[in-house]
Amino acid sequence: MTLPVADKYNIEFGDVTRAKFDWLKSKEYAGWVVFVDTNTRRDCLPLIEKFLDHPRLLIIECAPGELNKNLGTCQELWSQMFDGGVGRRWCAICLGGGVLEDMSGFVASTFKRGIDFLQIPTTLLAQVDSSVGGKLGVDFYELKNSLGVFNDPIAVWIDHRFLRTLPAREIRSGFAEVIKHALIADAGQWGRIQKIIDLTVVDWSELIPASVNIKREVVLEDPFERGVRKSLNFGHTIGHAIESYFLETEQRLFHGEAIAAGMIMEAWISYQLATLTVSDYQLIESYFLKLYGHQVILESSFDQLFALMANDKKNDDHRINFTLLAEPGRALINQFAGRPVIESAIRHYNSLAVATE
Amino acid sequence: MTLPVADKYNIEFGDVTRAKFDWLKSKEYAGWVVFVDTNTRRDCLPLIEKFLDHPRLLIIECAPGELNKNLGTCQELWSQMFDGGVGRRWCAICLGGGVLEDMSGFVASTFKRGIDFLQIPTTLLAQVDSSVGGKLGVDFYELKNSLGVFNDPIAVWIDHRFLRTLPAREIRSGFAEVIKHALIADAGQWGRIQKIIDLTVVDWSELIPASVNIKREVVLEDPFERGVRKSLNFGHTIGHAIESYFLETEQRLFHGEAIAAGMIMEAWISYQLATLTVSDYQLIESYFLKLYGHQVILESSFDQLFALMANDKKNDDHRINFTLLAEPGRALINQFAGRPVIESAIRHYNSLAVATE
Repeated sequence: MTLPVADKYNIEFGDVTRAKFDWLKSKEYAGWVVFVDTNTRRDCLPLIEKFLDHPRLLIIECAPGELNKNLGTCQELWSQMFDGGVGRRWCAICLGGGVLEDMSGFVASTFKRGIDFLQIPTTLLAQVDSSVGGKLGVDFYELKNSLGVFNDPIAVWIDHRFLRTLPAREIRSGFAEVIKHALIADAGQWGRIQKIIDLTVVDWSELIPASVNIKREVVLEDPFERGVRKSLNFGHTIGHAIESYFLETEQRLFHGEAIAAGMIMEAWISYQLATLTVSDYQLIESYFLKLYGHQVILESSFDQLFALMANDKKNDDHRINFTLLAEPGRALINQFAGRPVIESAIRHYNSLAVATE
Repeated sequence: MTLPVADKYNIEFGDVTRAKFDWLKSKEYAGWVVFVDTNTRRDCLPLIEKFLDHPRLLIIECAPGELNKNLGTCQELWSQMFDGGVGRRWCAICLGGGVLEDMSGFVASTFKRGIDFLQIPTTLLAQVDSSVGGKLGVDFYELKNSLGVFNDPIAVWIDHRFLRTLPAREIRSGFAEVIKHALIADAGQWGRIQKIIDLTVVDWSELIPASVNIKREVVLEDPFERGVRKSLNFGHTIGHAIESYFLETEQRLFHGEAIAAGMIMEAWISYQLATLTVSDYQLIESYFLKLYGHQVILESSFDQLFALMANDKKNDDHRINFTLLAEPGRALINQFAGRPVIESAIRHYNSLAVATE
């Protein structure tokens, strides 16, 4: 299925087939360079390998994971592209999760000032989030996605068969963005989602296009995040800081897990500072706790968390910018909260630990 | 003077005045970050310092020269931007020559996925070449400008008073691009230029806008170098290789000096393979030799030069792509020459050494 609205995002849902690669061939690229990581090379490449019959084909593998999403890895990828003779008229095929999609898209967009690229996202997170909106980049200076560009792929192919290769925890992580899309823009969808408890029996062929469509409409209206696109940052101001903080600890936290905690806290701030009702807040809190459990945020980490939030791309000046909820399905962008409110949100969240035991 | 044709390039000629900065202020950026190098901080910043009265102002200095145009320097600049609290709504002001313009424009275009930037080119080369066309980037893997993006500044202010701060050799280097613009697109201008022997008495207020205008028209027609923009590469296939090669030797060669040698050799190939007449070739050869003298290209460097040419961004496949001249004022893009012809061009050029002694 192709989304019915004609727009610049060439997003196609369904099996990646020979017909799709025939379309790619019709573009007559001088070569194809395929980016994979260790996992997608093993689990995902076999599904499309038989279609990769371009006479000039280069497969480049990088180490997986957020810790490798940096300029050092980019330099290895660029070097291998030069060594492999990649030219301006080549196309990059990016087969992987959010980290690989963001990083290899950035690498393609800056190699010889930019070559075309195609995204085949293989995780739920990448399918519903990273693959729409043209945000590409890497982490730098201990800040997530702090370097990058906006640039759109020639196409995105979303095939939910890849999700079968994922561990349950990875699916659950991506599902946080599905919940977020409902919370910021579609109250009806939020109602339906709350009925989902077991992520092994979800019909992804319905849920993914619906979720992608919410993001696509937001991004089409505001590609460079000057306004409404900021609504997608719900849960991400505190969530990104937590994610960055845990990156440097022993305890690994997935993006969606950090964002789930962030959404509880930012929903709590929405209840404190905006119009979110206590009952709507409690539904949000209990659903996230049920699916994602709870992380303890140590008081000793607060200063570092605030430093991370202060350096967030979303801020102008020195104020910390939030997206809050007016109600489920309606976001409020460009909201501000001071350190006392934010600290009380984190302490409130910490107090929920007992409830989940 | 603003160029009469309305287009996306906001290029203004004439003194950088308070009025220009008033326009910048009207854009209400959250802050201004000024990029300078050691030279432009000393020689050029004083001309505009009194207008830099934004309450949030950050001045970042980097070391000058092509050897510093790399990702290592970029990382220093990005770090200083983060430390200085630069946000997405800031504007970068890039005050420098081609190296600084290319690199700081790239740094701005990738910082937090891109902030606006303004260019104030301070060398003749930057004024007639780097400031038009949105090519930004750095050297990587011993290849010139091999990483980067296309992105346009919000404005370019071209003030020839900055040229007074330049050594004669720097002016002469930039002048090679002025000659190139005439050779590829304006036979009448080539006729006038040949009368210029003393670069200390040129009326830049006429010559620079005329030269910028040629490039601007070419780039407007073909922003991403799919076709006619390649005409600007005349002299650059061999010239870039020579420039990269000399970068690693003791003998420093300026961009324009390498390109001048490249234009003699590529004009010679134009005479061998295309329709350039021997008399037109000889006028080109003698004018460049008169202004730029001669560099000996050692036979022992040939393999490395060919490796550099083979890895040039301009190539598709493995063929070495040239822009040749059909006649003065008319370029031929996408021409190919094999190693024997290219070697004979270099040997022919080497044979001219005696003529200049």
